[in-house]
Amino acid sequence: MTLWQSSAELGPDQGLLQFTGSLELDSRLFKYDIEGSVAWAEALEKAGIYNSDELQTVTQTLREIELDIERGQLQLDPQLEDIHMNIEAQLTSRLPDLGPRLHTGRSRNDQVLVDVKLYLRDQLAELKQELRQLLQAFVDRAAGEQRTVLPGFTHLQPAQPVTLAHYLMAFFEKFRRDYQRLDRGNQGLKTLPLGSGALAGSGYSIDREFLARRLGFAEPSRNSLDTVSERDFIFDLLHGLTVLALHASRLSEDWIIWSSPTFGFCRLEDSFTTGSSIMPQKKNPDILELIRGQAGRLLAAYQGLGSLLKAQPLAYNRDLQEDKFYLFIALDTVRSWLPLLARLVSSVRFNRDTMAAAAGKNFLAATDLADYLTERGVEFRRAHNIVRQLVELARKTDRKLEQLTTEELTAASSLLGDEVRQLLQPQASLERREIIGGTGPRVVQQAVERATDWLNEVES
Amino acid sequence: MTLWQSSAELGPDQGLLQFTGSLELDSRLFKYDIEGSVAWAEALEKAGIYNSDELQTVTQTLREIELDIERGQLQLDPQLEDIHMNIEAQLTSRLPDLGPRLHTGRSRNDQVLVDVKLYLRDQLAELKQELRQLLQAFVDRAAGEQRTVLPGFTHLQPAQPVTLAHYLMAFFEKFRRDYQRLDRGNQGLKTLPLGSGALAGSGYSIDREFLARRLGFAEPSRNSLDTVSERDFIFDLLHGLTVLALHASRLSEDWIIWSSPTFGFCRLEDSFTTGSSIMPQKKNPDILELIRGQAGRLLAAYQGLGSLLKAQPLAYNRDLQEDKFYLFIALDTVRSWLPLLARLVSSVRFNRDTMAAAAGKNFLAATDLADYLTERGVEFRRAHNIVRQLVELARKTDRKLEQLTTEELTAASSLLGDEVRQLLQPQASLERREIIGGTGPRVVQQAVERATDWLNEVES
Amino acid sequence: MTLWQSSAELGPDQGLLQFTGSLELDSRLFKYDIEGSVAWAEALEKAGIYNSDELQTVTQTLREIELDIERGQLQLDPQLEDIHMNIEAQLTSRLPDLGPRLHTGRSRNDQVLVDVKLYLRDQLAELKQELRQLLQAFVDRAAGEQRTVLPGFTHLQPAQPVTLAHYLMAFFEKFRRDYQRLDRGNQGLKTLPLGSGALAGSGYSIDREFLARRLGFAEPSRNSLDTVSERDFIFDLLHGLTVLALHASRLSEDWIIWSSPTFGFCRLEDSFTTGSSIMPQKKNPDILELIRGQAGRLLAAYQGLGSLLKAQPLAYNRDLQEDKFYLFIALDTVRSWLPLLARLVSSVRFNRDTMAAAAGKNFLAATDLADYLTERGVEFRRAHNIVRQLVELARKTDRKLEQLTTEELTAASSLLGDEVRQLLQPQASLERREIIGGTGPRVVQQAVERATDWLNEVES
Amino acid sequence: MTLWQSSAELGPDQGLLQFTGSLELDSRLFKYDIEGSVAWAEALEKAGIYNSDELQTVTQTLREIELDIERGQLQLDPQLEDIHMNIEAQLTSRLPDLGPRLHTGRSRNDQVLVDVKLYLRDQLAELKQELRQLLQAFVDRAAGEQRTVLPGFTHLQPAQPVTLAHYLMAFFEKFRRDYQRLDRGNQGLKTLPLGSGALAGSGYSIDREFLARRLGFAEPSRNSLDTVSERDFIFDLLHGLTVLALHASRLSEDWIIWSSPTFGFCRLEDSFTTGSSIMPQKKNPDILELIRGQAGRLLAAYQGLGSLLKAQPLAYNRDLQEDKFYLFIALDTVRSWLPLLARLVSSVRFNRDTMAAAAGKNFLAATDLADYLTERGVEFRRAHNIVRQLVELARKTDRKLEQLTTEELTAASSLLGDEVRQLLQPQASLERREIIGGTGPRVVQQAVERATDWLNEVES
Repeated sequence: MTLWQSSAELGPDQGLLQFTGSLELDSRLFKYDIEGSVAWAEALEKAGIYNSDELQTVTQTLREIELDIERGQLQLDPQLEDIHMNIEAQLTSRLPDLGPRLHTGRSRNDQVLVDVKLYLRDQLAELKQELRQLLQAFVDRAAGEQRTVLPGFTHLQPAQPVTLAHYLMAFFEKFRRDYQRLDRGNQGLKTLPLGSGALAGSGYSIDREFLARRLGFAEPSRNSLDTVSERDFIFDLLHGLTVLALHASRLSEDWIIWSSPTFGFCRLEDSFTTGSSIMPQKKNPDILELIRGQAGRLLAAYQGLGSLLKAQPLAYNRDLQEDKFYLFIALDTVRSWLPLLARLVSSVRFNRDTMAAAAGKNFLAATDLADYLTERGVEFRRAHNIVRQLVELARKTDRKLEQLTTEELTAASSLLGDEVRQLLQPQASLERREIIGGTGPRVVQQAVERATDWLNEVES
Repeated sequence: MTLWQSSAELGPDQGLLQFTGSLELDSRLFKYDIEGSVAWAEALEKAGIYNSDELQTVTQTLREIELDIERGQLQLDPQLEDIHMNIEAQLTSRLPDLGPRLHTGRSRNDQVLVDVKLYLRDQLAELKQELRQLLQAFVDRAAGEQRTVLPGFTHLQPAQPVTLAHYLMAFFEKFRRDYQRLDRGNQGLKTLPLGSGALAGSGYSIDREFLARRLGFAEPSRNSLDTVSERDFIFDLLHGLTVLALHASRLSEDWIIWSSPTFGFCRLEDSFTTGSSIMPQKKNPDILELIRGQAGRLLAAYQGLGSLLKAQPLAYNRDLQEDKFYLFIALDTVRSWLPLLARLVSSVRFNRDTMAAAAGKNFLAATDLADYLTERGVEFRRAHNIVRQLVELARKTDRKLEQLTTEELTAASSLLGDEVRQLLQPQASLERREIIGGTGPRVVQQAVERATDWLNEVES
Repeated sequence: MTLWQSSAELGPDQGLLQFTGSLELDSRLFKYDIEGSVAWAEALEKAGIYNSDELQTVTQTLREIELDIERGQLQLDPQLEDIHMNIEAQLTSRLPDLGPRLHTGRSRNDQVLVDVKLYLRDQLAELKQELRQLLQAFVDRAAGEQRTVLPGFTHLQPAQPVTLAHYLMAFFEKFRRDYQRLDRGNQGLKTLPLGSGALAGSGYSIDREFLARRLGFAEPSRNSLDTVSERDFIFDLLHGLTVLALHASRLSEDWIIWSSPTFGFCRLEDSFTTGSSIMPQKKNPDILELIRGQAGRLLAAYQGLGSLLKAQPLAYNRDLQEDKFYLFIALDTVRSWLPLLARLVSSVRFNRDTMAAAAGKNFLAATDLADYLTERGVEFRRAHNIVRQLVELARKTDRKLEQLTTEELTAASSLLGDEVRQLLQPQASLERREIIGGTGPRVVQQAVERATDWLNEVES
Repeated sequence: MTLWQSSAELGPDQGLLQFTGSLELDSRLFKYDIEGSVAWAEALEKAGIYNSDELQTVTQTLREIELDIERGQLQLDPQLEDIHMNIEAQLTSRLPDLGPRLHTGRSRNDQVLVDVKLYLRDQLAELKQELRQLLQAFVDRAAGEQRTVLPGFTHLQPAQPVTLAHYLMAFFEKFRRDYQRLDRGNQGLKTLPLGSGALAGSGYSIDREFLARRLGFAEPSRNSLDTVSERDFIFDLLHGLTVLALHASRLSEDWIIWSSPTFGFCRLEDSFTTGSSIMPQKKNPDILELIRGQAGRLLAAYQGLGSLLKAQPLAYNRDLQEDKFYLFIALDTVRSWLPLLARLVSSVRFNRDTMAAAAGKNFLAATDLADYLTERGVEFRRAHNIVRQLVELARKTDRKLEQLTTEELTAASSLLGDEVRQLLQPQASLERREIIGGTGPRVVQQAVERATDWLNEVES
């Protein structure tokens, strides 16, 4: 393990090199650099720079280099600054004549961009797969908790009863939007940067339409100065990841509170907690805490990239090398916990009884009772007054509303009697809310079914 | 003018009220609050809460209140906390019986959300109109500067000649992406929140499909807990505005440098600068500096909203009231300068001669000369060496490359002679780049034409 | 009330003016602008620009203008861009000859800076006073809760018993550091900017030592280019306010959780909550939620100022006008809730019984029991094993550790018997921690006393 | 080199481990963990947990482990989560009986904090040393450029002549404040956290005063709940580093502009630029661009830590593990370029002639000419009018002010004649500003001398 050294401790030139080099950051791009180079070689052949034999030699050598790196047989050299120079140096060393020609009409500026886009395309596909698993986990758990009732909270105060399925589907909706945002935010990844040269467009008659098709892009970019200076596609991705991470932080917060013994709404599977060697009942929700905390990394990365781009003159400036610093923090962070979160959702144990007990307390049906009166013609404000008095009465005598006597109910309003006891059950409150988007059991079941259909659709 | 007072200077209750109240922030929503309430009244009528006469009375009174506010005849009362309470209080005071009933089955939580979305729909339409004007300004100016040559910069060092039209179209592309992002980022605005109640869905049989159609939404939201807790639609908008503002900051930076006398590439129209009473030649680019500086507000707003949402438990918490603080800062900031920027682009005077002179210096054609040799079979690295020596020779004798004698050229390589002088003109460099996205004059002209077509299309 | 208008809706010049003007932002500085101008007039007299009669006339007229603004008899004119121009225009209109001369050797750049510093000096004094009241509230409440026991939490899991006094003193320590940080961060406010001119130093022989003394600064700034370009003193203050706000957000989070009925550790005084018209028991902790949420404003303001300053060329640029935007958001936000927070801390009702009950559950004494064994020579890991088994036994049979029978205890280890029951009380755990900084009752009492002394000291 | 893998690609448990583990982050703390442990062992001996022989064995073994890590003879094991567990496991494996006992009365919570503080103390000392070298570089260069004149800029427009020494001393002042801020911001590093236990204070009679002295702290922390939950000392450091980085970004921006050929004010030493293989004159200021860009990392880190701390309940939560992520980014970033910046400042070549030429243009003396008239009794506004006309005349005829004929001067005002030509030289403008903090040559020389004295003082 290398321990970090300041520039001052290194020799002067090594200090500079360590500072400007980016190999540690960009080595992960090697496959995509090769992929881009192979396509570029083909474009050069079409432009007459290579003949077809030369093309084959170059392509094959590039593939050999790729394999060597993959197998760890080629030691990357930090002295060569970045991954692109490493591969270039290898190619030149293996093909002293043909190697250098590969860089004809290409610049580091457009080369790096195409590498990053190819890399992100793969990353995004994997990320979306992981996100679908999380979405599936919510749907699966919701399917099994359609009759579980718990208090819905506002201001962290119990407000109205909801089903646990409804709650889980709320997060399904949040993460589904994230999925769609990552899909949509994908536009910039569809545009080929290669061929933009250093800033003014390649000086060779490169067929960029061919290159775009060859590398799976929808079309070549339309302005070289714009292309080498812009990082919108990274910024859009960072935004998408940030919203996703914030959603995860909210789920984490909820379940950290829920798994606190005082709440006791759920119990995390052991591997997602750390305990104490001495207190077997202690279950610290470390995973959730880290997910919650790491949402800050996304906000940080977004700010970093934003500050980086602010007031940068066109076209390319070396500052832009920093884009990958933020991109990789953002991407690695989300990908480090996304699969874990899906497993956590799948495995958490909900304490249905504790939830039900909490849903039965705190007069959650008071609103429904007032609605009942209003519907029967009692003036809005008067209805509220009646209910308020009943709640006050129940609270003082430490009873639930449904434990009030029939006399007490009728005394408050002649419209109230035994028949309202049914209304005061959480179940009744749920059933009043069979409205699109509401917590009514039937409508939630439909939501679960629609979600299943949607998942099947996007999977295929 | 009220000067700001701390809570401590006010009486205790006023201190609390000033702190929790949001009238100053949300008064701008009054029209949308009325619009949402009228639709809600109609939905209540369909649900049997109002009869049709009552509906008409309520609707008409709401419209009168709207008119009174518009005309300044109704003084809003900060004691009533926010705009929604102000309107509610007015309605109740004018219709003591019917007024309170309007709030049947509705909560502040879903009411505010629909107001904000209706407001944003209008704002976004205006913003996009302003953005189209900016895009038009770039296209118009580009059309007139297709033969203007200037040095393209990387690292703020002159790198290769480009046309000014190409440069202007680079910003067209950036702002066009912003336009499309604002369009796409619009998804959340298409979902109706109303009917979600406080958190669990309205307890009344409200026809949310009707409400959605009535208020111009694509569909009702699908989960009430999600709906009252989420602010994705604001976050997406903030992201869109942030990227837009960063692009504007980069244009500002460029033109602040360009209008510095040392560069002298352009001269801003007088109203966009402030001068000195004593130095008539001094033109401080204040507008551009403020646009550049205010990009920071967008980053700040994004960070603020992000921190706000991080780790918030479901469903609604009062913290969320802060969303408008960031939203309005972001929106007002961009809208305060966007029309100005369009005018500034339309009116800036480019100093073509200064640009041309700069494009003729600094050996910008060196790359092209090396390419010339390579194309004629000289090995890549040798070609570079030859050109480097010629540049060195020219630099030492303070000449341009094209001022080297034929002997000097030929001495360096027998492939070089008088005929390369043509190649060394900026014009030749441009013409070598007739590649999609390049700075070649023909391809740039096509870009201008395509842009015009696109603008015509989105205008209609 | 003016509703916000975009630049596009205003005429062209008004649009520009609204954009560049800052009257709304800086009008609060009027007193300090007058104060600075009076001192400057005196310096001009010493430099021979005014004679003593002229000085008196100018000074008196400035004071009249101040009074007129204070009394609302002078309508500030947004056409005049900012507060400084408003006052300047008034002075010139009242003293056509002497007025303009006041600006001899002074620039807007150094004038605004001195105004802001004088303003901040007053603001900081008030803020520190408010902060002392908050600190006093913690000490007062701690003094009364020295015997109240509650579970200390880590990971939101009950961990070990602590006294409520110890908990309250933890926040005392946090806010005390904030107090000291604001004190220390004060350095930049002690340096006089006036006399720096636009950027190169005043061109007149102004006695800056005199000016510094006259306006209560420790010394004149030492480099004019630095002075007009730097905003460190604002940045330091923003940092101080940010840390303070984050501390407040943590207290808010804790007490939002504590006042949730499920926890029930405390009950906020009614005026700090909002209720429901229908559920009298519902106490939404809106004030705490807003304080928690508004911590985001501070982070936003810090980010905004940081982005503003990044990469700004020397010396002055108009971007810097934005500094006040962030400064005032930060300052106003903290001052809007700081006095409220002190009142809230003073008035919150702690539910001692609920706390005590929670402290008795969850085996909080397990660690202490293991320590007991270790101290008596049991090997570390074996001691842990013994206790773990006892906890397991108690948990399965739904008892507390102290409810295990003597036989059960002795069976686990011959060192355990009746005498350890005492040890298992929360009180025993507290008393084991009579270590500096620990929760031991005596050491906490000393902490309260030290805090009282410290407060008396800083008050005087 | 390990390429990054997502959790999904690893087995389930490795995924969790990779996610929660922090070895990569905290391995750099190993020396400080040993140092803290040795002191803790001594405290345990004083508390009777070890006898003196045992203490010696433990201490010696810890030192051996330290040496083994230093020499790379001990492979750290990621399975053991972090550096503290690695060292603990080693100790236990080497001393099965004594090893575990070292953790008596200590918690990971207070142990990590003391490690980080000890680490930061060393880092800060080195950083300050590097900063002193930068300060020295400014003073040295200023000493040599006291007669070099260049235009001072506002709004990137030439405004008034200043000496290069004055400009360099402006940055000296900025970085000196940074130095002092890092010194002051040091308070939190002086407080010993060890002995706070997990949250409630150690359960053993540890002599924390001894520990504080032993480890070089001023005093033990005063509240255990506060201690384990707070990160103010990191936040203060991040603020200090942020301001420092922003200052560096401003210098970078200035010199990137200055070294652009159009300006040509300076030329960076070759090793601080990257060139083009083909254009030997091209000097891309990559180092400065990266320093400018990386200021964003600091803003990002600050935001990250801020978001992390916001609304965290007391006392310790696992989120806090993320503090080091931001701290190390901030610290490593600044330390990676700080020594380079000092070398860059020492080695940059200033083009005095180009600067002088620029200072002679653009009518920089216009203000001084107006002052000259005012001093001779011309009314303020009339003086400005006269000068404006002269500037206009000179500009139209493409002359400098001093090239106007005597007749032209006198025609404008009878007070003007040959004698003002002297005044119109940059030198005269400088000499008018012999005011504290001004650009007057004598006062700047004094500033340089004072700076030298100050540096000598802080060095010792």
